[in-house]
Amino acid sequence: MDIKECLLNCKSEESIENCSVKRTLELLNGKWKTRILFELVKHDTIRFGELKKAVPEITNTMLTASLRELEDNKLVNRIQYNEIPPRVEYSLTESGKALFPVFYELAKWGHTYLSDVK
Amino acid sequence: MDIKECLLNCKSEESIENCSVKRTLELLNGKWKTRILFELVKHDTIRFGELKKAVPEITNTMLTASLRELEDNKLVNRIQYNEIPPRVEYSLTESGKALFPVFYELAKWGHTYLSDVK
Repeated sequence: MDIKECLLNCKSEESIENCSVKRTLELLNGKWKTRILFELVKHDTIRFGELKKAVPEITNTMLTASLRELEDNKLVNRIQYNEIPPRVEYSLTESGKALFPVFYELAKWGHTYLSDVK
Repeated sequence: MDIKECLLNCKSEESIENCSVKRTLELLNGKWKTRILFELVKHDTIRFGELKKAVPEITNTMLTASLRELEDNKLVNRIQYNEIPPRVEYSLTESGKALFPVFYELAKWGHTYLSDVK
């Protein structure tokens, strides 16, 4: 699908319920999910405490809830190691990693336009 | 900047405060902003009532507040025509239109992965 076809498809009223952009935005909605995914893009694996440190504004409750949702949507892997003390590591699944081009376009946009918009 | 350089740049702890992805995500954060921008991608110009119809879950207050924020961040133009009854139209600015590749990558991701993740 090329970029014009994508836009035409999105413009079609018939496809509104199946619109993949709308459904993907719904999936990524929430104050923290894209921010957490971006931390996971930057780290191959990351522990809960490291994530909390990288996103200091988030509460433990919200971080836990957001990670659980991302895990339910198969974007994030949670691996618990049976050690003492227990160790839990988070990483992106294949579909999570496939979001990288989205972050790349956000980075390119930011480099060019952030200085204009604020 | 190529995709590897972008990732390396994002990984660098030194650049964390200036990270364009993080700042762009902050700019686009909020339950409705990306959804409204996507409606504006699909329409050259759109009136308040048409936007409300396209995003029926949003309240008038939230739509007004979100549009005002998008306008303040120079992503959206608001043009008021002095007619009776008054007519107000919204459209994307140049920097708003430049977000199209982000939506395109979201669409591509959705086409490939949405069936896996829900």
